Amino acid sequence: MSASALLRSRVRRPSYLKKLAKAEDLIEFFPHGSYIGWSGFTGVGYPKKVPTALADHVEKNGLEGKLQYTLFVGASSGAETENRWARLNMIERRSPHQVGKEIAKGINSGQIKFFDKHLSMFPSDLVYPKNRLDVAVIEASAITEDGGIIPGASVGASPELVQMADKVIIEVNTASPSFEGLHDITMSELPPRRKPYLILQPEDRIGTPHIPVDPEKVVAIVESDYPDQTQPNAPEDATSQAIATNLIEFLKHEVNHGRLPQNLLPIQSGIGNIANAVIGGLSKGGADFTNLKVWTEVLQDSFLDLFDSGNLDFATATSIRFSPDGFKRFYDNWERYAGKLLLRSQQVSNSPEIIRRLGCIGMNTPVEVDIYAHANSTCVMGSRMLNGLGGSADFLRSSKYSIMHTPSTRPSKVDPTGVSCIVPFCTHIDQTEHDLDVVVTEQRARVIIDKCSHPDYKPILTDYLDRAEYECLKKGMGHEPHLLFQAFKMHQNLAEKGTMKINGWD
Amino acid sequence: MSASALLRSRVRRPSYLKKLAKAEDLIEFFPHGSYIGWSGFTGVGYPKKVPTALADHVEKNGLEGKLQYTLFVGASSGAETENRWARLNMIERRSPHQVGKEIAKGINSGQIKFFDKHLSMFPSDLVYPKNRLDVAVIEASAITEDGGIIPGASVGASPELVQMADKVIIEVNTASPSFEGLHDITMSELPPRRKPYLILQPEDRIGTPHIPVDPEKVVAIVESDYPDQTQPNAPEDATSQAIATNLIEFLKHEVNHGRLPQNLLPIQSGIGNIANAVIGGLSKGGADFTNLKVWTEVLQDSFLDLFDSGNLDFATATSIRFSPDGFKRFYDNWERYAGKLLLRSQQVSNSPEIIRRLGCIGMNTPVEVDIYAHANSTCVMGSRMLNGLGGSADFLRSSKYSIMHTPSTRPSKVDPTGVSCIVPFCTHIDQTEHDLDVVVTEQRARVIIDKCSHPDYKPILTDYLDRAEYECLKKGMGHEPHLLFQAFKMHQNLAEKGTMKINGWD
Repeated sequence: MSASALLRSRVRRPSYLKKLAKAEDLIEFFPHGSYIGWSGFTGVGYPKKVPTALADHVEKNGLEGKLQYTLFVGASSGAETENRWARLNMIERRSPHQVGKEIAKGINSGQIKFFDKHLSMFPSDLVYPKNRLDVAVIEASAITEDGGIIPGASVGASPELVQMADKVIIEVNTASPSFEGLHDITMSELPPRRKPYLILQPEDRIGTPHIPVDPEKVVAIVESDYPDQTQPNAPEDATSQAIATNLIEFLKHEVNHGRLPQNLLPIQSGIGNIANAVIGGLSKGGADFTNLKVWTEVLQDSFLDLFDSGNLDFATATSIRFSPDGFKRFYDNWERYAGKLLLRSQQVSNSPEIIRRLGCIGMNTPVEVDIYAHANSTCVMGSRMLNGLGGSADFLRSSKYSIMHTPSTRPSKVDPTGVSCIVPFCTHIDQTEHDLDVVVTEQRARVIIDKCSHPDYKPILTDYLDRAEYECLKKGMGHEPHLLFQAFKMHQNLAEKGTMKINGWD
Repeated sequence: MSASALLRSRVRRPSYLKKLAKAEDLIEFFPHGSYIGWSGFTGVGYPKKVPTALADHVEKNGLEGKLQYTLFVGASSGAETENRWARLNMIERRSPHQVGKEIAKGINSGQIKFFDKHLSMFPSDLVYPKNRLDVAVIEASAITEDGGIIPGASVGASPELVQMADKVIIEVNTASPSFEGLHDITMSELPPRRKPYLILQPEDRIGTPHIPVDPEKVVAIVESDYPDQTQPNAPEDATSQAIATNLIEFLKHEVNHGRLPQNLLPIQSGIGNIANAVIGGLSKGGADFTNLKVWTEVLQDSFLDLFDSGNLDFATATSIRFSPDGFKRFYDNWERYAGKLLLRSQQVSNSPEIIRRLGCIGMNTPVEVDIYAHANSTCVMGSRMLNGLGGSADFLRSSKYSIMHTPSTRPSKVDPTGVSCIVPFCTHIDQTEHDLDVVVTEQRARVIIDKCSHPDYKPILTDYLDRAEYECLKKGMGHEPHLLFQAFKMHQNLAEKGTMKINGWD
């Protein structure tokens, strides 16, 4: 194959051009059962050509369920790749985060084994104890002279995926500009010989502008010719604006009482219309909030407004997930934004070490919050997995101000306020399970019952799990099966009869 | 007052000797409503004379409930001080951890407001946003020329308590030896200008050997003449030995598979007979485990055995809580241990930054664990507070190996295995509530209902809380009142009728 002039302008390592290939000719690198890593985070910077070619191959040859993979992506990939793979039953295991109806369906039906983990920890767990990774497919916006990868709009877990993979395939995206200069890349050291992150403020650089790659691991280069398929932003509504107004009021109050400086502390803001409204509110804050800095996981369109307002001095994240209009605006005004922006690996953007040091203001949206301030970030009705924990616990544990913002109700099918987001007891609580190194699937539950419980209780707990699994799988909410309304029956028996040994769960 | 020769040998700052006073003459510094800090951690290094004099004063003059304080101690103090204060109704608020029947009773009856917080975070929250602290009473084993405090067997939160207090009273304990040289003290900086902890291995020193004090804040020096009142260790039993054997077997397995080096990773071990058995097992491990290092919160007697076995190269903690025999053994062989031991502030010993960097092996005992690996560390039956979260979540979140060890059952009144420690759903889950900056008391629950819930649900949630409070306070388990067996009634209504609006809780 011969490289286009555009591709040659992006790839400064001549030997890589000899490895130029078409995606459909790379199927052989992906035998059934492979462990695969993709670049990408919150639906930007993910590989497009190779995953699509593999999906076409499965579809064309009726290989559904016969080519299955363990898939690691820093966070979510694009719907047209990951979701399609789920629909074609190509994903056996997935970690640490996902977004998409088809993949969620696969997880909740028990078809896809999903391991939900802090986004800051996933890369660290990948490198030590050493995990197997056959091939990493990484999107680049350019390649340096020594073969290093300049990522696009996200860094995510790409450094560690490259570090651990036996083979690397690079998709060079020529449909978007080169992002060179926008990244600060660090690789992972192994404990106990890890070093401090010497970051003292959001703008500090401690790494290289590219991901170093062993050129002998690179088995193919593919030109990619279409941009990240992002969606327009969900519009702000009255509720999200009201929440934002309250939150901005609170921040002003803290400044007025001398508890926060006028430029606040470094801000972390999640994804969604509430987060957009909050950042929008800071843009409209005029002289109330100036010289702000942002230390966060992902930047949405509203941060462009915050830059344009003159109130934002610097922002760093692991991903910029703009809408199509937002990306156009960003590219058209590159010089205005580029000097005030830095993308890092998710291990750094979400690092509890740095979040605590800087004293961030962390803001996230939960599924529900209970009256004692426990929160559910992942499993609706205790069982149905949404997207995963993400970085919520990285930020909420270590921030100086840890804030959850939520509407007080959501609609149910028969009642516009049928779901209260404030409940007596959250049906799922999202921290300890992720602090422990245990895979959260119903398979693992059987191992815990088998290995840890007393023989007197083994049949009781097994019976519970059997029934819970049956009921929850029937409803397509089987990530963590529970008989929620009987879950405390053993405790009730102890309170009433002095022992947890119950006769049955009926 | 004139100072004894022994006291003069310990106090190298002459101006302090002019402030020598008797504890019973210091009552005036403690008006009703004062915010007080004590040194101390896990029942060692706590002040003895001043708290006892205040308790005597209250008892003698019938002032129960009329002299009440907000009391901050790094972790637990001594039973003869803190517990006695609780019995005399002298504690209005307490944070962040406690041990003792009387204080637990006060908390669970609603008499003492207890704020349960990560031990690494409590000092950081004390200094920013700035908290009020009227007087700190700090036990010293010696005083330096420039007036700095050499602590005794614990550091805990003393640096920050001294940093924040308007007045400082120092109790110089002459009944135990000077611990000079055994400490590495760092003070707290304020966000966003905090610095990295430049600790790359357990033996690294980054601070001073003493706690710096502004001498003008020191209002009195008191000689203290009796040692820490520790208890003998709970003996190992068959269960704890069996658990330890399993755990040692697991560590060997990890070494054999190349996932852990032969000297493991830095070890954290909690308190109690299981922890003692595990550390004992490493001592008896012979050549299997050599050159071990320990990064932990507190050292028990078993660590002396581990030193003596020759398998332990270095240990650092914020407290050494030996039995009376253990302290004698330690003092008699000072030279053997002192060079291999370092005591730090709890903000450093429990620092997630360092724990994650070193990749610790964290081991703790829970109240109960559920089949999906959520754990309860604090509240029995969801409501009755034991001691508080302590450092469990500091270590379990950030360690490379996060391990919970527990017996599979405990006895109830009518059945020797009436309580299973493995349950379907933990009645209390211990992480998210501590990640959020919300005080966990029933008072705060009313504020959350009032400020956050939808008007349609306010009466339902308030009714729940009223009933839960009534039922739980009746049983003396009112820290977080729950109607555990009705807690999911709103969710059940949603599942069955499509809305969370229930008619009542009966």
